[in-house]
Order: sequence, then structure tokens, then C-alpha cells
Amino acid sequence: MGVNIVKPSILPGFMELTPSNQILFNKIMDTIRSNYEKFGFLPIDTPLIEKSEVLLAKGGGETEKQIYKVVKGDTDMSLRFDLTVPLARYVAQYYSELSFPYRRYHIGKVYRGERNQKGRFREFYQADIDIIGNGSLDIVNDAEIPSVIYSTFKELGFDSFTIKINNRKLLSGFFKSLGVEDSTNILRTVDKLEKIGIDNVVKELEEQGFDSKLINAIMGFISIKGTNDEIIKNLRKLNINNEQFNEGLDELQKVVEYIRLFGVPEENFALDLTIARGLDYYTGTVYETFLNDYPGIGSVCSGGRYDDLATYYTKQKLPGVGISIGLTRLFYQLTEAGIIRSTDYSLTKVLIIPMEGYIDYAIKTASKFRNKGIFTQVYLESGKISKKFNYADKLNIPFVIVVGQEECDNNKYSFRNMKSGEQKTISLGEVIESLK
Amino acid sequence: MGVNIVKPSILPGFMELTPSNQILFNKIMDTIRSNYEKFGFLPIDTPLIEKSEVLLAKGGGETEKQIYKVVKGDTDMSLRFDLTVPLARYVAQYYSELSFPYRRYHIGKVYRGERNQKGRFREFYQADIDIIGNGSLDIVNDAEIPSVIYSTFKELGFDSFTIKINNRKLLSGFFKSLGVEDSTNILRTVDKLEKIGIDNVVKELEEQGFDSKLINAIMGFISIKGTNDEIIKNLRKLNINNEQFNEGLDELQKVVEYIRLFGVPEENFALDLTIARGLDYYTGTVYETFLNDYPGIGSVCSGGRYDDLATYYTKQKLPGVGISIGLTRLFYQLTEAGIIRSTDYSLTKVLIIPMEGYIDYAIKTASKFRNKGIFTQVYLESGKISKKFNYADKLNIPFVIVVGQEECDNNKYSFRNMKSGEQKTISLGEVIESLK
Repeated sequence: MGVNIVKPSILPGFMELTPSNQILFNKIMDTIRSNYEKFGFLPIDTPLIEKSEVLLAKGGGETEKQIYKVVKGDTDMSLRFDLTVPLARYVAQYYSELSFPYRRYHIGKVYRGERNQKGRFREFYQADIDIIGNGSLDIVNDAEIPSVIYSTFKELGFDSFTIKINNRKLLSGFFKSLGVEDSTNILRTVDKLEKIGIDNVVKELEEQGFDSKLINAIMGFISIKGTNDEIIKNLRKLNINNEQFNEGLDELQKVVEYIRLFGVPEENFALDLTIARGLDYYTGTVYETFLNDYPGIGSVCSGGRYDDLATYYTKQKLPGVGISIGLTRLFYQLTEAGIIRSTDYSLTKVLIIPMEGYIDYAIKTASKFRNKGIFTQVYLESGKISKKFNYADKLNIPFVIVVGQEECDNNKYSFRNMKSGEQKTISLGEVIESLK
Repeated sequence: MGVNIVKPSILPGFMELTPSNQILFNKIMDTIRSNYEKFGFLPIDTPLIEKSEVLLAKGGGETEKQIYKVVKGDTDMSLRFDLTVPLARYVAQYYSELSFPYRRYHIGKVYRGERNQKGRFREFYQADIDIIGNGSLDIVNDAEIPSVIYSTFKELGFDSFTIKINNRKLLSGFFKSLGVEDSTNILRTVDKLEKIGIDNVVKELEEQGFDSKLINAIMGFISIKGTNDEIIKNLRKLNINNEQFNEGLDELQKVVEYIRLFGVPEENFALDLTIARGLDYYTGTVYETFLNDYPGIGSVCSGGRYDDLATYYTKQKLPGVGISIGLTRLFYQLTEAGIIRSTDYSLTKVLIIPMEGYIDYAIKTASKFRNKGIFTQVYLESGKISKKFNYADKLNIPFVIVVGQEECDNNKYSFRNMKSGEQKTISLGEVIESLK
């Protein structure tokens, strides 16, 4: 009765982890989640499949080309490609049941049929927070968002990172003051500064037909540097007579003031006039976050303020502000760069190895440990003791206790620290104390 | 510039929750996860999309009809319909990197295009554990699985539930002793006993052409009742001379002995010879779990022992034992039956309401609270104070503190318990103590 064997493999562009990497990944995800919850964000879990007409209501653009269609029966269905569109649909749908400002976090998988290349994933986690107002939303919220980013990355173990902040109103107001009404193309080009360098930005702007006077003004503007307060001061000094510019500047100043109140240290946030964010979606404050020691990784957390979340699903005006962490990509990059390593991680604290005939006692001991909240596994298979120690070692389980006749008779157990190799003979009470 | 409004809605058969229900759902999911981890199960997270040739390697049956196909480019892809097939593929694929016995838990969504009816979901969470041996797996593992079920449902707040246990070898050995070689149909029919009643089982067996002597023997066998020890004793008394029967009986006896050692109380598990499990997949121990006060809900957690996990992906023999909780369905049923209610749940412990001009102070206070691990939200919008209290009320936030001039000057804050309505004027230190 031969069975045809299919080669076990997954699709290209999909991430799948071995157990110790998965533990590490989950640890990062849990840290993000608990930080989001600490600030009063509410959980959400929307279907991965949505009606195509809902998901693609906005239509057009790159998104539609990257969509995964789902087929079963006649309904036109697709996999979600971000967590923002489902949020917009959700808020419009449950509008009357939600309390505003509605603060939600969402950690979930999204799907994009991107070109297959290293470090690009077709299935990846996003970890988003958004604050949605009903009709209006105070600018102070734009200052709270960076404090959540700060708290999260700090707890993830990073010290040297910068949340770069800018304001789209400031940018388009400035361009308007130069006579440019539609600054979309300029913004898109300026946004590439980090990637392509200043010379190429100038070149691109020239190609777009802007004259050198204008380009010089743009270059002068984005080269305004200094401390956060200096930048604000220098922007004021420009004396630009444009309402939008001054509104953006006021917002930026208020965000800076409040970020400090929210406890974000000065070294962890910086006004940066070159941050524009490619998407036309943002209308005010914009953020990008960089790990200072690893600039090559690019922004690890981006977002901003938008005027209206759910234009395609409701007439209610729902302004919001939010950010997103591309978790799968971040994990991949941190691992590739050797910044995080999975070898130290185990959820299980202790492996109990029973000598022959002492499995009963081992099982009872395990229950005692678990009742004290200690994650415990009993090695239930027969075999050489060296193999069992090796098992603990391979799974990074930090402690092993051996249970046999001598141990039970004298209430003295061989208790080994697998990392240091140190072995003690101690009582069960002492073992529990050591493990807690 | 009118925008076409698309009605915000989700597909039928998909569950989506409002915030307080989502908090409750996550609480249940977290409890299941922490119990699984406590017993040394390792996390896994496989792609939701797999190659169809891999996912459907077994082929045939109901499964293939219910599959959701995914379309993007030329590859034949599908959404997973359970967590067992991806596990089989995973173990075969990473065989050399895994340590056996490999214990994994997996909590994730699966997809089945079932007929649309109340309480049936097309996207639903399964929460599985499995222990996979390399070549062999000790029967003691079959006793540990119920102890994980026990620990989990106990922590979920249930006291009166019964893990019903049987053994397929015992059943097919018994039928072989009666001259029936292929007992698949009998097992399937007997498995329906709970649903269709004894008379209909007899009728179905008659229709299948079994003679009345045989049917009487079957009915006699499945009516063996009593305490766990009595059932074992009565089965021994049958003196059946069939190797498979006696192997099954020995296993069942050993499982009963060890379940006790694992700390499962006698009232929470029961041998039940009518439990057969519909799937041909199981080869030894089988489990089903019932909430005694809500028999209508059916089994809330089922599983069993199988000879070989990954026949379709590897020649390695990988016996295993596992169970699955159908989390989405369980949540739906518990909510429908009024057994659980979401109204009490909030992650946020306290809402800080600043009086006008005291937002700065409120923000600083929030940081203090969060540093003490207290989940805190500041109400940042302007508006009437009654509206802000109402916000806390609607979100079930249990405590509110008001921050204004008087409060700051005297370090005495209005601190309200939103449930009891009790309001105290106390110092910040006292507030923190009350919240912790």
C-alpha cells in the first residue's frame, strides 16, 4: 500500500520559523501588544477574507495588482492587504456601538503579492495602533502616539532610536507659498532623500520641470537642521505667509511640547523636514522611526495623521492618527543583522527526567511545579539519560532535575543548570525556590 | 467630489466582535495558550496559504469540497482547513531540526466553506496541541493530554466537565472478535449515539445488514457502564480472545492510572465505550470533552492518538496524540447560552479625566501609573465631564480619576469606582495602591 510522497514545502515569500525562533517572535509580538494595551488601545480581530468591493472600494494603484483573490462559490473575495482598510470598514459598520475616541490595536497577518525578493514577504504581520475621533480629534493625540512607540521599542531592548516627525501641512503650505499648488510629486521625490541622496532628488525635481530657483528654495527648506526647538524657531523665522504652513507649524510645535510631557526623552525624537511619507493618505503629522545603529534597516515604525478614515464607507467624518510596525520584516532584519538571536529562548523552565520506575513521581512533581506557575515538562519516553539531557539542551530548557530512588528517599535531587553546567543536590523546596 | 459609498459589511459565516467581546475572546485564548505553554508545548505559526498539492495530498472526501482556493499568478494555492495537515507538513519538512518528542501548540484560523447556518463558521480558530514521537511514543502521553484539557477548562472557569475516553483498538478488536473485519461503518454509526439515540443506531446498523445477534452484542458492549475501574474490570471479564482488543484494554487501563497521577480528579474523566470519533485518522485513545451543565453544546475539545502523522510527506514513522478546541464555535456557544458575558471586561484599569488646563498634569500622572504596570488612558478631548465619565462607563473601565487645580494643589484626587459608584478623595499614592 504505497503512498505517494509530496515534498513538504511552503510557498516562496512566506515566513515560517523553527520553535526557538517562534518563541522569540512571539516574545516580540507580546511586548508590542502589552505596550499597546498599557495605553488603553482595544483589541480587534477582523476576518482575513473580505468582500472585494469593500476591500478595494478606494480602487486603483499598486494595491489592486498585489491582491490575493479567494475563490469559493460566486462571491468576489480577497485577502486583506493592510489593517487600515478593515479598520475603516469596521468603524463605519459598528459606528453606533463604538465609543469615541476609539483607540484600537490590531496585530495580524496581511497579504501582498509582491515580487519575490530577499526580505520581502507576501504574508506578514502588521502591528498597528490608531486613535479615531468622531468629527474631531485633538492634536495632543499626535503626541501620544510617539510615546507608545517609545515605550514599545524601549521595552523591546532598544535604546538608540529616533522617532522622526514632520507635518504634511507645513510641507504643502511651504510649497504653496512658492506657488506650487499640487506638491504630491515634490513630496514623493523628497521622501526618497534617504534612499537616493540629495543629488538625485535635485535631478528628479529638474526632470519634473521645476525651475532651479524653486529647487533651491526646497533644498534650503529641507536642510533646516538643529535641535527640535531650533528647527521650530528657524521655521518661524522664515515668516511664511501661508495659513496651512502656519497651522502645520503650530501643530508641530504643540506635538513637540506634548511629546516631552508624555515622557519621551529628547534624544529619541527629532523633527525632520525631509520626512514626507509616500502615501497621499496622510494630512498632518507624520512619523518614521529609525534604529540609529542600523540605519540600513530603514524605518521600523511609520504612520501619521489623516483627516478622514472611512470616506468610502460612511459620511461620518472620522479623523485619526496611527502607526504601524511591519513585524515580520522587522524580525527578519533584526535576525539577519544578528541583533537578536533565538538561542537563549525557551518557555519551558525545567525538564524532569525520571529514572526507570520513577515516572509516577516525576509526574506528581511536575504538577507541583506547574501549580507554582513554573512551566514544566516531564520526559516521558524511555532511553539513555544522556539523550534526555541532550533534549533539554537542544530546546534551550535552562534547568533539569533528575528523579529516582535515591532522590525520593532522601528528598535530595540532582538539579542542573544547563547553561553553566553547575549541578547541585538540593531539596524539592529549594528547587522550586531556584526556579521561581 | 462625491465618493461612492460602499456598504460596510463582512462575508456571511465570519465572526467579528465588538471591543468588549474581543477582550473576552482574547482572555479565553490567552488562558488556553498559557496552559498549553505550562506543559512544555512549543509555539508554531504556519502560513495560512499553502500549495494545494501539499494541503490536499491526502485527497478526496468532504475536505476538498470545502476548500477556499487562493488566486495570484499561476501557483495552485489554498487556505488551510485545519492545523493538523500543516503540522504534518511542518514536521516532515523540519524533521532534522526538531527534537522529539516534539510538542507543539497552534492557535490559529482555519477556513472551511461550510453551508451557511447559525453557529457554523467559515473562518474559525482552532487551538491544538500534539505530541509527536520519532518512531514511537509512550502511552503515558495519552494520559498527559487529558491533564492539559483539565488544567485549561478549569482555568477557564468550568468545574463540571467530563473528558470522555475510549480506545479504538478496543473497539475494532471487539468487532473483530465478532467476525467483523472492517468496523468503520459500525464505528461511524455508534459515534452518532449521543445525537440520534439508541433506537436509531440499531436501525442504522440493521440497514447496513448486520444481523440481530451481532447488533445485540454491540449494544451489550456499549452499554457497559460504571466507574472507570468497574468498566475496566467488566471489559476484562468479557474474556475476549483478540490481541487488538487486549492491547486496547491494556492501554486504556494505563491511561486511567496515569491520568490520576497527572492530577485529573475522578469526576472529570470517564471511560465511555460509545465514543468512537468519526475520523478514520485515530488509531488508539480517543477523547471528547463535555460541559455537564450544557450537554447541548456537544464536545468542546476532541482528539486522540494516531499511528502516523505525516504519511503523505515523509517515510519517517511519526506517531502522535493530540486534541483540538474549536475556539470560535465554543465562544459563540458560551455567549449564546449566556454562560459568559463581556460586560465586565476592560483591559484599561483607569481613565484619567483632566479638568481644563490640566492635561499636562494628567499626562504625567498617566506615565506614573503605566510605570507601575497600570493600564491607563488619558481622556484627551475637550467636552463635558459627564460625557467623559460616560465614556469610561461604556468601555467598562473600572476606575476614573479627575485631575484639576484643587487636586494638584492638595494632592487629593476624586477617585471613582465606576461599578459601585463609590467616590473617594485620596492622595496619588493611595490611588496607585488601590489600582495595583
